[in-house]
Amino acid sequence: MDVQRPTEEDIDEIELLTQPGREDDLRTFLLLLHPADVAELVSEIKEPAARAVLRFLEPTQAAQLLSELEPSEQRRVIDLLGVDRASEVVANMETDDATDLLQDLEDGEAKVLLTRLPASEQRALRKLLKYEPDTAGGIMQTELVYVSAGSTAKKALDAIRNASPDIDIISVFVVDDVHRYAGNVPLKKLVLAQEPALVEEIMEPKIVEVTPEVDQEEVARIFDHYSLVELAVVDSDGQLIGRITADDVHEVLIEEAEEDMLKMAGTGADPEVIDSDRLSRVVMLRLPWLLSTFIAGLLASYILQSAHLMFSTAVVLLAFVPVITGMSGNVGTQSAMLMIRGMTLGNITSESLLRTVSRDAAVAAIMAVICGGAAASIIGLWQHDWALGACVGVALAFSMVIAGILGSIEPPILSRMGIDPAVAAGPLITSINDISGALIYTLVASLFLQYLK
Amino acid sequence: MDVQRPTEEDIDEIELLTQPGREDDLRTFLLLLHPADVAELVSEIKEPAARAVLRFLEPTQAAQLLSELEPSEQRRVIDLLGVDRASEVVANMETDDATDLLQDLEDGEAKVLLTRLPASEQRALRKLLKYEPDTAGGIMQTELVYVSAGSTAKKALDAIRNASPDIDIISVFVVDDVHRYAGNVPLKKLVLAQEPALVEEIMEPKIVEVTPEVDQEEVARIFDHYSLVELAVVDSDGQLIGRITADDVHEVLIEEAEEDMLKMAGTGADPEVIDSDRLSRVVMLRLPWLLSTFIAGLLASYILQSAHLMFSTAVVLLAFVPVITGMSGNVGTQSAMLMIRGMTLGNITSESLLRTVSRDAAVAAIMAVICGGAAASIIGLWQHDWALGACVGVALAFSMVIAGILGSIEPPILSRMGIDPAVAAGPLITSINDISGALIYTLVASLFLQYLK
Repeated sequence: MDVQRPTEEDIDEIELLTQPGREDDLRTFLLLLHPADVAELVSEIKEPAARAVLRFLEPTQAAQLLSELEPSEQRRVIDLLGVDRASEVVANMETDDATDLLQDLEDGEAKVLLTRLPASEQRALRKLLKYEPDTAGGIMQTELVYVSAGSTAKKALDAIRNASPDIDIISVFVVDDVHRYAGNVPLKKLVLAQEPALVEEIMEPKIVEVTPEVDQEEVARIFDHYSLVELAVVDSDGQLIGRITADDVHEVLIEEAEEDMLKMAGTGADPEVIDSDRLSRVVMLRLPWLLSTFIAGLLASYILQSAHLMFSTAVVLLAFVPVITGMSGNVGTQSAMLMIRGMTLGNITSESLLRTVSRDAAVAAIMAVICGGAAASIIGLWQHDWALGACVGVALAFSMVIAGILGSIEPPILSRMGIDPAVAAGPLITSINDISGALIYTLVASLFLQYLK
Repeated sequence: MDVQRPTEEDIDEIELLTQPGREDDLRTFLLLLHPADVAELVSEIKEPAARAVLRFLEPTQAAQLLSELEPSEQRRVIDLLGVDRASEVVANMETDDATDLLQDLEDGEAKVLLTRLPASEQRALRKLLKYEPDTAGGIMQTELVYVSAGSTAKKALDAIRNASPDIDIISVFVVDDVHRYAGNVPLKKLVLAQEPALVEEIMEPKIVEVTPEVDQEEVARIFDHYSLVELAVVDSDGQLIGRITADDVHEVLIEEAEEDMLKMAGTGADPEVIDSDRLSRVVMLRLPWLLSTFIAGLLASYILQSAHLMFSTAVVLLAFVPVITGMSGNVGTQSAMLMIRGMTLGNITSESLLRTVSRDAAVAAIMAVICGGAAASIIGLWQHDWALGACVGVALAFSMVIAGILGSIEPPILSRMGIDPAVAAGPLITSINDISGALIYTLVASLFLQYLK
């Protein structure tokens, strides 16, 4: 691998270079590193050294560094910079990154930073801060280069020349005479344009645009669907107000995948559950997700307990409850996950839904016969009691099939109820399966009871 | 929302337009749609209409359409096109997309298509097909524009002009005199360059490069770390052999997130588990993941069953096993997931590991006291048996704490053993918790036995 990342030696070296008298060496060392690598370094070195490094960075370098950091690290760097330097650095950040940063700071701190920014920057950020963080408005930036459709290609080139050197330009945006978004001129076309070409002759007309309220997940889907590198954001009149770039969508994809995993693990999707240092806060965030399991566990126990008299004559049956609940929970989660995947691919109609559910039920049935047979044989041999083995095997097989079916119908039902189906692949399905498993086990056991020792 | 997607009306309209005699209207209709939308349409309309649509597309349009489709839809379109037309279309695809397509076809079909391609295309694809699909080599494309460092900016412009019009150009790659990758000239810099600038004066020197064997997850991490839009792929001598673009990384991110979710759900990471139409294949892919749960369930049953005599005197105790296993499974999964997230963020040292584990144990302990207390009160009131309530409550609390600790130490242990920790958040943790839950329950019950009715 050729990736330059700060190594142990880099860290040792930087601690040396931040000693007094070595300022020139430090400056040279920092110039050779990418801001993303300096960001990693700053997170790993001790406070005095970090402070020295931050002092030697240009505001634009520090701005890039700040954009690369996790929220908790950002707060640390803002503190190290002090409010004067911090506001200078924030003014140099891209507006989308600056908005994210301000949203993660304490309200008071964010306000102080905001009021110290240049007026135009302040206005832009105040507007962006009004959008929800997980919408198109929350991830867009206002920095972009645009020209009107009737301009010449040369005028578009001038617009690029006059733009701030820090703006990443992928294409020049084109607007009509009332500033409505009309299309883009990719830089490649501009490079190849022959004078006196007009922008409207060489532009790619708009395919798609979004308004600021659109959910970021929908934005990611649009990027993916049309293989975009950037996307225009327009207001309700169709006027161009910002753009979203591919790297913003990377962050969205990572964030949404994380959220789904957290939901599946039954911790809720609040990232604070990871970041927060306050135990009581984490407990309050995690505890509600245990509730469905708790109630379901008690209900399952209630069912088993109601059959108390029956089970006292064959108490050994109850010992096999973990096999039933464990297996049906697992099969249910498998089926739920595969259904969620099918739904994400987006091609589930009511017809294909039925096909998927029955295909899944068939798979569950085959696995149920295999596992039920294995359980019956193992328990029969081990306990020298074939009736007991048959009882557990049959109960296991039935509860696996039911679990498979419940697992695959839950996600579409939840989704129709407006609940994120990722929740279904987690504790909810296990809870429901615990109850249905207990019911099935009790029923099957009552049928087998007369044959048991 | 302003997103144009094929609506029900579009589908009805296209079915009408594919009637004989309406060829001109069909052509006009198709010209107005983005290839990604045509791809959606083709997946949803019936075979004769789909065949008619495919007949009217230009090879470049059909190539873009094919790149947008899921593997199973790609196979259908290749069949509809017929081998002659299909090879013409594949020749127009970007090499990375063509490679993916050929990898998903049956071996025989892929071979036939390959031999009908133009020689240069064939050579490029055969090379790309040698790389594993989930490596940098497997996702790179060979189409790129490069010049040597000593060239003038004008020569770089000529290189763009002479390149195939279908290549997306984000920057011009720069190589030294032995074709080793040296950097990039972003188009913006080329646009603004004053004659007679040299490429080496305006290029951005390389920050990072990868060799073809690098894992695609590492590629995604590099893109994210350096906020890249494209990345050079070089051979072992550092010579430029391809590039990876941001949209390829989107696919990687989606794929890896899916894989992790599938692993957590205990279905393994093989996407075939979703795609395959053969039931027996799906069973063989899903069944092994049930094995750990099966064995753990039997072991837990064995433990409970060994205490058989004890439990016959207080059979009601066994009815509460689902509460214990359900809750400790859930707490364990929560803790495992949060630890995995912390490890993904990449800032877990052995010191911070200890801090995270103990923080998590503290959270689990608080939740254990709350849930144990609630269980004791509910069961005590319900059964009019406070000793029973206390027994279940204490056992529940202890197994939740142990589950929390096991959940957070499992991921780092698995990861050190070279096993993907996402597996841990799934069936494995539930399995281990079933066993530890049964053990703890048996121990606690034996202590309480003399007080139970």
